[in-house]
Amino acid sequence: MSFLEKYRRAADTRNSLVCVGLDPDPERLPAHLRGTADPVSAFLKDVVSATRDLVCAYKPNLAFFGALGAAGWRSLEDVIGAIPDTTPVVLDFKANDVGNSARGYAKMAYDELGVDAVTVNPLMGSDAVAPFLEYPDGCAFLLCLTSNPGSADFQRLSTPGGPFYQQVARKAVEWSNTGPCGLVVGATNARELAKVRRIAPGLPFLVPGVGAQMGDPGDVIRYGSDGNGGGLLVNTSRNVLYASSGRDFADAARRAAESLRSELERERAASLSV
Amino acid sequence: MSFLEKYRRAADTRNSLVCVGLDPDPERLPAHLRGTADPVSAFLKDVVSATRDLVCAYKPNLAFFGALGAAGWRSLEDVIGAIPDTTPVVLDFKANDVGNSARGYAKMAYDELGVDAVTVNPLMGSDAVAPFLEYPDGCAFLLCLTSNPGSADFQRLSTPGGPFYQQVARKAVEWSNTGPCGLVVGATNARELAKVRRIAPGLPFLVPGVGAQMGDPGDVIRYGSDGNGGGLLVNTSRNVLYASSGRDFADAARRAAESLRSELERERAASLSV
Repeated sequence: MSFLEKYRRAADTRNSLVCVGLDPDPERLPAHLRGTADPVSAFLKDVVSATRDLVCAYKPNLAFFGALGAAGWRSLEDVIGAIPDTTPVVLDFKANDVGNSARGYAKMAYDELGVDAVTVNPLMGSDAVAPFLEYPDGCAFLLCLTSNPGSADFQRLSTPGGPFYQQVARKAVEWSNTGPCGLVVGATNARELAKVRRIAPGLPFLVPGVGAQMGDPGDVIRYGSDGNGGGLLVNTSRNVLYASSGRDFADAARRAAESLRSELERERAASLSV
Repeated sequence: MSFLEKYRRAADTRNSLVCVGLDPDPERLPAHLRGTADPVSAFLKDVVSATRDLVCAYKPNLAFFGALGAAGWRSLEDVIGAIPDTTPVVLDFKANDVGNSARGYAKMAYDELGVDAVTVNPLMGSDAVAPFLEYPDGCAFLLCLTSNPGSADFQRLSTPGGPFYQQVARKAVEWSNTGPCGLVVGATNARELAKVRRIAPGLPFLVPGVGAQMGDPGDVIRYGSDGNGGGLLVNTSRNVLYASSGRDFADAARRAAESLRSELERERAASLSV
């Protein structure tokens, strides 16, 4: 099944736009797991098990696994293998390179790790993105506007066609005729989110910045959703993963995911009834 | 020893600005190596052994190893371990993320893999680059202007301060006050290379696009070198790695590296005598 079908089914059947980011920080793992054979994998698999009926996707970030070297790579494979096949996995990697190198990253993500979608940094242009579009069942989420302060340095620069990030959105719309793509758009500025949605009405948006980074879930629904109140993967990582540092971490993770899901659903119902 | 010291010593003692890119393509490995336990590692270690006195750096590209999964990760560790400590290793990764994720990538590169420098995609801005500047002995080579056709899509967009890629160069100069950084500038357009050198007179440039992509080595020296005829790592990958597909691949790789070294040294001597 393609990423988009999987995402839509998961979002519909679970009434959820919540994507849980799997960002394992060894220093924040519950104390009772430390010293076990693979605490990272044990921790994340318990989080997945506790939240699997509440999410539309999981998003492991390669950086946290890469920082652990070869052992981290094994943990990543292990965790991806434990995610139910009905839930799409987005590898957060911000991959970027050209030609055979880009093809190598696409192969790594789709063939080696078996994920359903990948985040891609578009700065190198069409020939850096094209290899990711060759997977009709995948989805390349292009970095459009990120939720960190540094996004102002380059992403908001004025260009003749409007701010840089809007050019990225336009290119994504163009490239989506070749293969499935989406956009990463931070939740921290409602007006900009609305702008990107106008440029790309039909693309799925992966939205970081809700929760720890203080984006408002109501704004995300109002300004970011497509005409049907969907097309969104609203990511939360630390608020769920580290909701408790004790033995109850999985229950606490479930409560945190449930809370964001309810808030988003309330807003979605309100926006559709207007 | 810091990246910059290592690079300068290697470049000076070997009279070489040649950086050999280690991009293993399983389909192009010599036939007699296929089927051995780790053909990728065996191949690259022979190339390193045949060229080690001719280069100022090696540049493994993570994509080619990542495409091979966990086995590729082990090959990468193995190859990096076989590079003499007198020769700096630049991990070509185009890393980009923020906060703890960026810190994770820096840790992966510098602590887990033990490389001397990393390529970094600057699109996410200062807080995505900062974690890489915290390694005073490392060097973050920021993508400024790449040598692929798609570089026109975003890198050459006009902004109020000039083309986008020149803004990256200006930021790199600013950030180099915090920690060591350099720029990736393609060899395919001499005028643009000269522009970037004027903006960033003191930064090291990693220059792809010579050889397979047809950039002119003479132009690279004339327009890209710093006032002392240095500050350049001129990358060549396929022309060296796949100079021969037979049992003589290592000798052929040596001849190809030697040929580029001589051409660059001739141009360097000419440029300094003007």
